[in-house]
Amino acid sequence: MSEQLTHLTSNGEVHMVDVGAKAVTKRTATASGELLMQAATLDLVLSGSSPKGDVFAVARIAGIQGAKKTAELIPLCHPLPLSGLTVEIKPEQALPGLRVEATCSTTGQTGVEMEAITAVSTALITLYDMLKSVDPGMSIRQIQLLEKDGGRHGHWKR
Amino acid sequence: MSEQLTHLTSNGEVHMVDVGAKAVTKRTATASGELLMQAATLDLVLSGSSPKGDVFAVARIAGIQGAKKTAELIPLCHPLPLSGLTVEIKPEQALPGLRVEATCSTTGQTGVEMEAITAVSTALITLYDMLKSVDPGMSIRQIQLLEKDGGRHGHWKR
Amino acid sequence: MSEQLTHLTSNGEVHMVDVGAKAVTKRTATASGELLMQAATLDLVLSGSSPKGDVFAVARIAGIQGAKKTAELIPLCHPLPLSGLTVEIKPEQALPGLRVEATCSTTGQTGVEMEAITAVSTALITLYDMLKSVDPGMSIRQIQLLEKDGGRHGHWKR
Amino acid sequence: MSEQLTHLTSNGEVHMVDVGAKAVTKRTATASGELLMQAATLDLVLSGSSPKGDVFAVARIAGIQGAKKTAELIPLCHPLPLSGLTVEIKPEQALPGLRVEATCSTTGQTGVEMEAITAVSTALITLYDMLKSVDPGMSIRQIQLLEKDGGRHGHWKR
Amino acid sequence: MSEQLTHLTSNGEVHMVDVGAKAVTKRTATASGELLMQAATLDLVLSGSSPKGDVFAVARIAGIQGAKKTAELIPLCHPLPLSGLTVEIKPEQALPGLRVEATCSTTGQTGVEMEAITAVSTALITLYDMLKSVDPGMSIRQIQLLEKDGGRHGHWKR
Amino acid sequence: MSEQLTHLTSNGEVHMVDVGAKAVTKRTATASGELLMQAATLDLVLSGSSPKGDVFAVARIAGIQGAKKTAELIPLCHPLPLSGLTVEIKPEQALPGLRVEATCSTTGQTGVEMEAITAVSTALITLYDMLKSVDPGMSIRQIQLLEKDGGRHGHWKR
Repeated sequence: MSEQLTHLTSNGEVHMVDVGAKAVTKRTATASGELLMQAATLDLVLSGSSPKGDVFAVARIAGIQGAKKTAELIPLCHPLPLSGLTVEIKPEQALPGLRVEATCSTTGQTGVEMEAITAVSTALITLYDMLKSVDPGMSIRQIQLLEKDGGRHGHWKR
Repeated sequence: MSEQLTHLTSNGEVHMVDVGAKAVTKRTATASGELLMQAATLDLVLSGSSPKGDVFAVARIAGIQGAKKTAELIPLCHPLPLSGLTVEIKPEQALPGLRVEATCSTTGQTGVEMEAITAVSTALITLYDMLKSVDPGMSIRQIQLLEKDGGRHGHWKR
Repeated sequence: MSEQLTHLTSNGEVHMVDVGAKAVTKRTATASGELLMQAATLDLVLSGSSPKGDVFAVARIAGIQGAKKTAELIPLCHPLPLSGLTVEIKPEQALPGLRVEATCSTTGQTGVEMEAITAVSTALITLYDMLKSVDPGMSIRQIQLLEKDGGRHGHWKR
Repeated sequence: MSEQLTHLTSNGEVHMVDVGAKAVTKRTATASGELLMQAATLDLVLSGSSPKGDVFAVARIAGIQGAKKTAELIPLCHPLPLSGLTVEIKPEQALPGLRVEATCSTTGQTGVEMEAITAVSTALITLYDMLKSVDPGMSIRQIQLLEKDGGRHGHWKR
Repeated sequence: MSEQLTHLTSNGEVHMVDVGAKAVTKRTATASGELLMQAATLDLVLSGSSPKGDVFAVARIAGIQGAKKTAELIPLCHPLPLSGLTVEIKPEQALPGLRVEATCSTTGQTGVEMEAITAVSTALITLYDMLKSVDPGMSIRQIQLLEKDGGRHGHWKR
Repeated sequence: MSEQLTHLTSNGEVHMVDVGAKAVTKRTATASGELLMQAATLDLVLSGSSPKGDVFAVARIAGIQGAKKTAELIPLCHPLPLSGLTVEIKPEQALPGLRVEATCSTTGQTGVEMEAITAVSTALITLYDMLKSVDPGMSIRQIQLLEKDGGRHGHWKR
């Protein structure tokens, strides 16, 4: 824990860290999160009366578009062009609710953890938006990094 | 639970619901969420060696700016001009971690729940970003609506 | 044809026209456009091997999100909050190809023609993007206003 | 036509294709499109009473700025930094109307077709916007890719 | 000078002030600023070898588009839909350089000073960008509010 | 002064210059600017009754976020991913007022002067916004490039 918070200069002000001297390497990251809901809400999403496809497609696209906006949303994030991004949404009866997992990759000087986490959180709040008329009490939990690779620190896994 | 998912047309396709006939009323919403971290990470945030002010200010501003982007991030959300927005960040030793609460208001035809939730989630991922170099295992939880008011459905409280 | 081009000042410079004195009325507009493709490409979109749902959902959402960006894309357009927006995509064997129609509405001081046209053109180029790997020679045609209502000029129909 | 739609995963969901393994090459693309109008509208644009320069400059800039937003508008497009972009607008008495042609280039792992097409369509709807007060019945046609170069598939020409 | 800084809460944290209780009135604001350059640079801008029209049109449009982004650029600004905006650029031999003046208006609960100032500063840095290859030493000065009207404080003039 | 304005094509139309053939080098730039205010306003910013930290942090972040939007704000600027960016704000009793200095860097084919200047101007107008309720007559001056390095022209210093 002796490390510095890298987003702060020596006089304690925020800045966008200079990564210009870092190696350009392949970077990947996977994050996930969950939307808890009433069992009846999950049934509604999965039942024939509701086109699960469209609901899931909207959230997947929101996740992808959200990830592209990471540096616009998070002040000290470096802009970087993603080379690939997948957002998966799975119903989980045990929660009950929906689980979102996003994996992204790039070749660059900074990691893509924040892009993966932003994809997950944007997909989750989009799902919340589409289902809130029937279940406003839903909650989002367990948004976390599962794994990342590339860069000076190498592989990290939860 | 017999209600329709309002974001779907009768043929099951997504659309942006027409709210043109809804009453223009004062709308408010409050949402909250938490970032769990190691006790040592929270100590670092709160200790003199780290300018809590700047870290908190960055997250508050990210939350405010994120809320303004709600309709850009969430495909079926209506754009609306917020009239007020406050984002509060509090350390909680019991988690241990940080708790974010956002309250926003407008006068319009749709609610501001998604703006409050987007403010919270953007502030939380921004905090994650600033602290991830010392504690990548942090997780975000309990992003939820606490209360809302205004509109046809009136007051709702968790 | 004796009318002025309203986007030009008397000294011939572009400006964003002052609409502050116009009446606030309900405004609607419908626009449409077509993507022409090879018959085999249309078959692929409609066949079981391709999830038409996802392809159409992506284009519908792109159209909705594009419409929200109208004032960002078109320099002299006034920003306005849409109150409703629907984007429909229909296969047409006669083209062969896909036909997009968008209808939007607001209550305000300027019309929503450009929002409807932007929704259509964004949905069409998104469809082109998803199908270009199999048919790069597709072309977009007949993007046009079908009907509009509200404001000083009242109802207009093609 | 046996190729897959590359924007779909094997389970038929949309994703942003991973291009991380593709070669970094010089990429160029040219697209064009047309705005059809009444002969009198074209005369007005070209006559001394209307500063053609400003109208054309607005559309050229809208095309350039639109191209920079390609990945924001088209959900499955990869963000990429353009290295050059030219938008040309020419009156054509034979249509009668205006013809827009855009050429763009980059050095990267994906093509720039969508940037060229987005530049063209944004310039065209901007021209429509500036002229619609005198001729709302105008229509946009023939937005298409003319030529592209670079990448695995090499040169393609209409 | 005894007034509070309104962007700070009582515990000294930034927030977006709640303007929901303010009167909806017509608001206008005018701001200006100058770009100082070498006399030869101004000659080049004004001479026949350089299409002043295009250079000025680009800067005017940048100013208009910049003004629409005010709430995105300035964290504590309220989003508001402008109803009108004019950006004028005039050569001034006495500087020597270019003078930009922007006037904007809306009907709403907050003033439009920041929109006018953002229009001016964006037009000025855009002019700098277009001329920097011949005169990188140019400087921007005197960006200031000239006049504003509407709201609780009424008319203000420099 | 015999050089061409590079943003204009040979027929005098604006375009985004093709930089595809330029060398990829490390680029840095530093710019600065000042906000002049009444002495009492500066005292208020610096006094205990006003949390200077938050006001300065908001402006620093606005500067950083503004720099990331450079190519969105300035029509003919190339998009480029910044690798580092620092914004410093210092009170200067002699003005009296605040002085902003921004330094940014990237590795690419174009310079980062406009990013540094955009960071400075966005931070300055954000400071103006936070202080205007007590001192609307403040003015911004001396926004200028101090130094740049990298690229064909090499080092330049005011």
